[in-house]
Amino acid sequence: MAIVLSGMRPTGKLHLGNLYGALQNWINLQDKYKCHYFVADWHALTTGFSESKEIYNNTLEMIIDWLAFGLDPKKSTLFVQSLVKEHAELFLLLSMITPVGKLERVPSYKDQIAQLGESRTANYGFLGYPVLMSADIIIYKANYVPVGIDQIAHLEFTREIVRSFNNIVQKEVFIEPEPLLSEFPKILGTDGRKMSKSYGNAIYLADSEDETAQKIKTMFTDPRRLRRTDPGVAKECGVFMLHNIFTDKQTCNEIEYSCANASIGCTDCKKILIKNLNEKLRPIREKRKQLQENKKNEIIENIRESSKTASQAAKETLNIAKEAIFNNYL
Amino acid sequence: MAIVLSGMRPTGKLHLGNLYGALQNWINLQDKYKCHYFVADWHALTTGFSESKEIYNNTLEMIIDWLAFGLDPKKSTLFVQSLVKEHAELFLLLSMITPVGKLERVPSYKDQIAQLGESRTANYGFLGYPVLMSADIIIYKANYVPVGIDQIAHLEFTREIVRSFNNIVQKEVFIEPEPLLSEFPKILGTDGRKMSKSYGNAIYLADSEDETAQKIKTMFTDPRRLRRTDPGVAKECGVFMLHNIFTDKQTCNEIEYSCANASIGCTDCKKILIKNLNEKLRPIREKRKQLQENKKNEIIENIRESSKTASQAAKETLNIAKEAIFNNYL
Ligand code: SF4
Ligand code: SF4
Repeated sequence: MAIVLSGMRPTGKLHLGNLYGALQNWINLQDKYKCHYFVADWHALTTGFSESKEIYNNTLEMIIDWLAFGLDPKKSTLFVQSLVKEHAELFLLLSMITPVGKLERVPSYKDQIAQLGESRTANYGFLGYPVLMSADIIIYKANYVPVGIDQIAHLEFTREIVRSFNNIVQKEVFIEPEPLLSEFPKILGTDGRKMSKSYGNAIYLADSEDETAQKIKTMFTDPRRLRRTDPGVAKECGVFMLHNIFTDKQTCNEIEYSCANASIGCTDCKKILIKNLNEKLRPIREKRKQLQENKKNEIIENIRESSKTASQAAKETLNIAKEAIFNNYL
Repeated sequence: MAIVLSGMRPTGKLHLGNLYGALQNWINLQDKYKCHYFVADWHALTTGFSESKEIYNNTLEMIIDWLAFGLDPKKSTLFVQSLVKEHAELFLLLSMITPVGKLERVPSYKDQIAQLGESRTANYGFLGYPVLMSADIIIYKANYVPVGIDQIAHLEFTREIVRSFNNIVQKEVFIEPEPLLSEFPKILGTDGRKMSKSYGNAIYLADSEDETAQKIKTMFTDPRRLRRTDPGVAKECGVFMLHNIFTDKQTCNEIEYSCANASIGCTDCKKILIKNLNEKLRPIREKRKQLQENKKNEIIENIRESSKTASQAAKETLNIAKEAIFNNYL
């Protein structure tokens, strides 16, 4: 069975964008592949320490969401990056064969510096982010990494490192990972921008039904519908994008039609969404609550254990790599 | 008891420059301090892979020299850097707080690139060499690092990292190491340049007495003594620098005097050195041979064990550091 690897930064409670984007995709993959999913806590440090004290809590909250939403620890190996020391070791090893110039040319490096400002980003760890990412992937000999179409290039860096390492030691130690092209539904936040924690426009699994209702009530709709009588284009409305996830196909078709001829108002349209969304999330939220209240220690225990399992697999690859580099290591 | 830390790259068999420079100093320190001495095998990779396959053997040969020469594993903790995974972890952690610009400004970075050429040095790991060095030192809460007068500045980098880390977490997690100023005798190779493996001008503990005699016979002397009747200045002669180590004070004074008035020839002067040097090294070489022939497995076993001891100490500091950064880590 081919191996899939993917990680999420510990941003804390997951919102609908995370859940029906990356996480739903992870769940879809877990029957077809041997999946390794991890909390990328080291990566959370590459762009600053201001929220580092939240990482522990965020990790836990995120894992609770994973489990509540349907990620199955019996099918996939769930682990925390910093609990698997081998990531750091391979990072150090790969750092010896990665040209600095190559890292400086990574498009996201220059972009992020422009976006976040020098002070938060111009550290050595941030420059080496693709090295750490490569270590994460190849230490499990992952065959596939799920990516959106705009991220295919990211993986090319890792593939080059693999070729370069294998070439130095004249041995197929690492495997070149392939992109597993995945489609992620477009999910907008309450303000019409992409749903994102940092924009403060997100709806969370951890939100109550009332909070959810409140957020949807204030949500941006198609700006064409200034007045109740103005026709709209549902496909360009964030509310409708959520309908696509939570409302049955036929009702979606009806809404699209009624929006286009202004026979439905946004308030009513939202009421349908609120009902469907809360109903669909109810059992998941229920499970989340139970895990949160009764299972925290068990979850911590399990993630420690499965991180050990990951560590075993990582150690095997790392030892082969060290053996190849050092010939016959101590 | 204050803690001292120092490392040596695994260059293989040690020559007189190594032995009576760094190693003699290590031995002098081992009664006054709690010393941690390590084989810097990761550092050996920062400047290239061409000799990486020798690292294992070089490590062993070097440790055999350490032991034969008088380093006492009962007094000091001897270990191999790559066997203590915590170095890699702290390297990764410190990389998150080290500005890239600060690394680019390290004088040795630009120097080495000029010396060794871009292809061997311009890798990410080489740029991060001071980060790894800092991790090596502070993970054992070392109070002192033995340095020559020209290396005091190197330690300032580490001290700044410590201040910056402690400042971020608002806690005295790491200790600022202080330089332990050490005097290293000047030891020249057979060609009159500094004794160095890479110059091919070195005399090794592992050399036989005959090989030693041969090397000394061809050794450069004070160039003023073109003819037997030309007076020389012993203090500027590599042979005399070795006399200072291997010959008693009175004889040294006589040689200095006889060299200055040309009453002794270089050949005779060298004969005295050959005799004294070989005599003094005889028991050490004997011990080396015994270790080499009968104790290899035991040495490997011991270094593995003491690396575990080092690992325990390192883990304690690392856990405190992670706890400080992550608040309450898994
Ligand atoms: S009716 Fe529904 S789909 Fe149309 S603009 Fe309003 S909220 Fe969006
Ligand atoms: S006599 Fe001895 S000290 Fe003087 S130049 Fe010759 S070798 Fe050197």
